[in-house]
Amino acid sequence: MAPRGDSEFELIRRMTRSIACFSDRLSAGIGDDCAVVACGPHSDWLLTADLLVEGIHFDRKWFSLRQIGDKAVRVNVSDIAAMGGVPELALVSLAVPSGLSVESLDTLYGGIREAAEVFRVTIAGGDLSRARDALVLDVMILGTTERGRAILRSGARVGDRIFVSGTLGAAALGLRAAREERRGPDAESALARQCRPEPRLGLGRALSQGRLATALIDLSDGLSSDLAHICEASGVGARVRVQDLPISDACRRLAATLGAEAVDAALHGGEDYELLFTVPPDAAAVVGGSRFPFAVTDVGEILSPGAGMILEHPDGRCEQLQPSGYDHFR
Amino acid sequence: MAPRGDSEFELIRRMTRSIACFSDRLSAGIGDDCAVVACGPHSDWLLTADLLVEGIHFDRKWFSLRQIGDKAVRVNVSDIAAMGGVPELALVSLAVPSGLSVESLDTLYGGIREAAEVFRVTIAGGDLSRARDALVLDVMILGTTERGRAILRSGARVGDRIFVSGTLGAAALGLRAAREERRGPDAESALARQCRPEPRLGLGRALSQGRLATALIDLSDGLSSDLAHICEASGVGARVRVQDLPISDACRRLAATLGAEAVDAALHGGEDYELLFTVPPDAAAVVGGSRFPFAVTDVGEILSPGAGMILEHPDGRCEQLQPSGYDHFR
Repeated sequence: MAPRGDSEFELIRRMTRSIACFSDRLSAGIGDDCAVVACGPHSDWLLTADLLVEGIHFDRKWFSLRQIGDKAVRVNVSDIAAMGGVPELALVSLAVPSGLSVESLDTLYGGIREAAEVFRVTIAGGDLSRARDALVLDVMILGTTERGRAILRSGARVGDRIFVSGTLGAAALGLRAAREERRGPDAESALARQCRPEPRLGLGRALSQGRLATALIDLSDGLSSDLAHICEASGVGARVRVQDLPISDACRRLAATLGAEAVDAALHGGEDYELLFTVPPDAAAVVGGSRFPFAVTDVGEILSPGAGMILEHPDGRCEQLQPSGYDHFR
Repeated sequence: MAPRGDSEFELIRRMTRSIACFSDRLSAGIGDDCAVVACGPHSDWLLTADLLVEGIHFDRKWFSLRQIGDKAVRVNVSDIAAMGGVPELALVSLAVPSGLSVESLDTLYGGIREAAEVFRVTIAGGDLSRARDALVLDVMILGTTERGRAILRSGARVGDRIFVSGTLGAAALGLRAAREERRGPDAESALARQCRPEPRLGLGRALSQGRLATALIDLSDGLSSDLAHICEASGVGARVRVQDLPISDACRRLAATLGAEAVDAALHGGEDYELLFTVPPDAAAVVGGSRFPFAVTDVGEILSPGAGMILEHPDGRCEQLQPSGYDHFR
């Protein structure tokens, strides 16, 4: 029987429920974007790993090998950004099908190497294996923060404002456009968001250094699922206002072309790799007034746990917001 | 074109030749059993990752899911032993084919969890994904040593003695016996060596704390290949005496049953996960006289680089020893 009824997170919970902790330097483990490990008196290390599996996370029809390598690094760097940290070292494990030429492997690794250089990450090791069939990349990144300053998912408090960076929905619509072989500038810029996510390291650092955010996560699965992670870890509810979701005009046009709802893509599409974070009311003006090369938008507020997650439509109508982001175990 | 002409190590060299180093705390990176990273004034961290891919590293015909999970941890712990370190934290990434039930996944993870507990390793994170076809496990382990005391592959000097722990050859012969459906106590004990390697953490620690070894590696690919790594990293040659290779009687009997050469299995078979290390002549007596629950055997000596690797037969005849251990890219 395939584990179809269980979500990825239920499976992880089930598998890891009885894990023993032998280390006194681990301050956050399974269930956040990174594990947090004390390293000397002044700094913490952040550890994260993300698998990319051919046929599950990417299709070589839409992604070049260079883009696949590049993305494998970027999604991990985004997990470091989602703690407010700085990436430093990487281990890169590759399982390579026999059909892939040495030149193709060079191209793939070239993408990994280039992204590592962009983010000043040193590749310190890893593993290389044959694969029977699908190409698999597992990148592990080790980053740092000042001691005790990693921003977890668990700190959101009732009354906090909910912010997101950048714009939402393009990554999912870009992939759909590629699958439907749509062309044009809107489809291409959306696909670029899917292929080359931009980790928001600067914003993560600013939130950590300014002690501005109470909870932080990156939008890999989709706002509805990732906000649910914050709500669960923090023991709170939340309201999101549809009219304030940051969706670009190009994304709205592309959605219309595809017969899709831009709002659904923004809420559930996933892979935007923007940051979602909560801010105490008295710090909201500082965050709203900060200058970044992208928007930082107030999209809602944290409620008491009994409220669950609520979606408020422009006409004032409210409904429960179900976590419906990407989950390849559903 | 498949990368058939290149070995795994040539491919790694090719891919990683132009990697930029941005970190001033990395004292050893690609090309040793672990990366070595400074962590505070008194300790170094050791980082290693090993992939296990179904159909390449294991076949579910010979390995239970529990054994696969268990082995994925053990081979990584062995890399920590091969630096003289202590394992502490793990990240576990799994790509799971849809045919694997939730119960099977529990069994697999149970093997991982049990091995982690045996070695007092805390599972701190990882990733879980669907796989299209083959089960893939990538375990990353983070260990520690006292600052500057990790034993690299590069320290062997002319005149050093070459030692190996335990006995050699059983893991490879055990797998062959399973494939040929041979039964009996010799076949079963050999297969157990293949399925459940015993990382030599105590020996690695003793070598590091006593400053006894100049170079150290674990025997994953096979003595001929792993000694070649030490010779290359240290810029030396080596002689190995056939008559001193530690091969158990059970292993010799099994080899005879299979029509195989026990010496070939000991030299090239791989997966014994014993330690291979070099010791200055004045420390050889200390190492030889140490008490471990397994043999520690002097099998040869380090020569000048011009000598290459030499195999000395019992009749005094010498031949070049070619690195012929396991390499799934050949």
